[in-house]
Amino acid sequence: MKKIGVVLSGCGVFDGSEIHEAVLTLLAIDRSGAETLCMAPDMEFREVNHLTSQETGAMRNVLVESARIARGKIRDLKTVTAADLDAIIFPGGFGAAKNLCTFAEKGAAATIHPEAARLIREMAAAKKPIGAICIAPALIAATLGRDFRPKVTIGTDAGTAAAIAETGSEHVSCPVTEFVVDRENRIVTTPAYMLASRISEAAAGIEKAVKAVIEMA
Amino acid sequence: MKKIGVVLSGCGVFDGSEIHEAVLTLLAIDRSGAETLCMAPDMEFREVNHLTSQETGAMRNVLVESARIARGKIRDLKTVTAADLDAIIFPGGFGAAKNLCTFAEKGAAATIHPEAARLIREMAAAKKPIGAICIAPALIAATLGRDFRPKVTIGTDAGTAAAIAETGSEHVSCPVTEFVVDRENRIVTTPAYMLASRISEAAAGIEKAVKAVIEMA
Repeated sequence: MKKIGVVLSGCGVFDGSEIHEAVLTLLAIDRSGAETLCMAPDMEFREVNHLTSQETGAMRNVLVESARIARGKIRDLKTVTAADLDAIIFPGGFGAAKNLCTFAEKGAAATIHPEAARLIREMAAAKKPIGAICIAPALIAATLGRDFRPKVTIGTDAGTAAAIAETGSEHVSCPVTEFVVDRENRIVTTPAYMLASRISEAAAGIEKAVKAVIEMA
Repeated sequence: MKKIGVVLSGCGVFDGSEIHEAVLTLLAIDRSGAETLCMAPDMEFREVNHLTSQETGAMRNVLVESARIARGKIRDLKTVTAADLDAIIFPGGFGAAKNLCTFAEKGAAATIHPEAARLIREMAAAKKPIGAICIAPALIAATLGRDFRPKVTIGTDAGTAAAIAETGSEHVSCPVTEFVVDRENRIVTTPAYMLASRISEAAAGIEKAVKAVIEMA
């Protein structure tokens, strides 16, 4: 049975993993007959009240909050290596661009969480497939851009696409229900809530992208 | 377009809405071409760390945390009436049995959150369909048992089934990928994570149950 890592970054679109994208990823993996290994970094993040979209000033822990999506079955990212996985998928949400890296604030000059950077580089070096959803392709671009020049999509947002190009990666426009495959680098990306106005639109692209990742694994 | 209320009870299986069940409900509603109206009560609850399954001693707010699942688009339960809805669905998770009522602690002697009780009674009086998933059928049983003697399922757990029978309701055993319909009371229930060992099992039952609710609406 193929083992697919899912890297979570909290629990909620404004300060963590986009919940719909994460759950739809878990469903698509399970329906493909593969096994999921959820993981998240053990680090603090700034809580956002999702009713008001405002930061509260309080801190929460990425691993502890991600455990909500994983129903408690989750590992500290630092304990997972590429040898444990056949493929890896990064759901979106601001957590992917604020916790796993600082792309939301710094664009192409983003720093990457060291354990996220390590695991992405290990997967790329091992030629194991990497999937990324919504804004998470920016994390992959910022990590691998200079060395691998990956081809990714975040949909059609011009500013984000420009920042991705600055990392050395290539941005390709893509509609919400489709996905982009970089066959050379084995990277699969789909826009999801960068473009989706309904959960069924996000689901369509995520199902196809997850299937493509698992087929390559 | 039919409008389906989804009553959330937090964000996380151990102290709120079961996240997979809630998201799968939103997906099934959207795929059926109906519109979703998410709501949750504005009340405090006891936070559970989902990595350790232990209460932390801290409090969170049900409406604010539920907004994570609803991506910010959610209403205070007290502002919603049966006139706003064609049907209503309650995902499971401990929040349904600890926040929306006290069934987890008190069984058939549970007290019901007054706004949840009001809306459930309004829907029943208007003969509008009610869906309930996982442990949430216990909330419906505890609210309507004496007056309507509804027929519901929470799967096969004998202790929970006995507590449901004590409310005056009838419990029917049901496998995870199926659902139970009480045609007279227009109540649809499915076991989901009361029995599911995989997300795809929960999804199969939820998809069928949501479809049945919307067809009756």
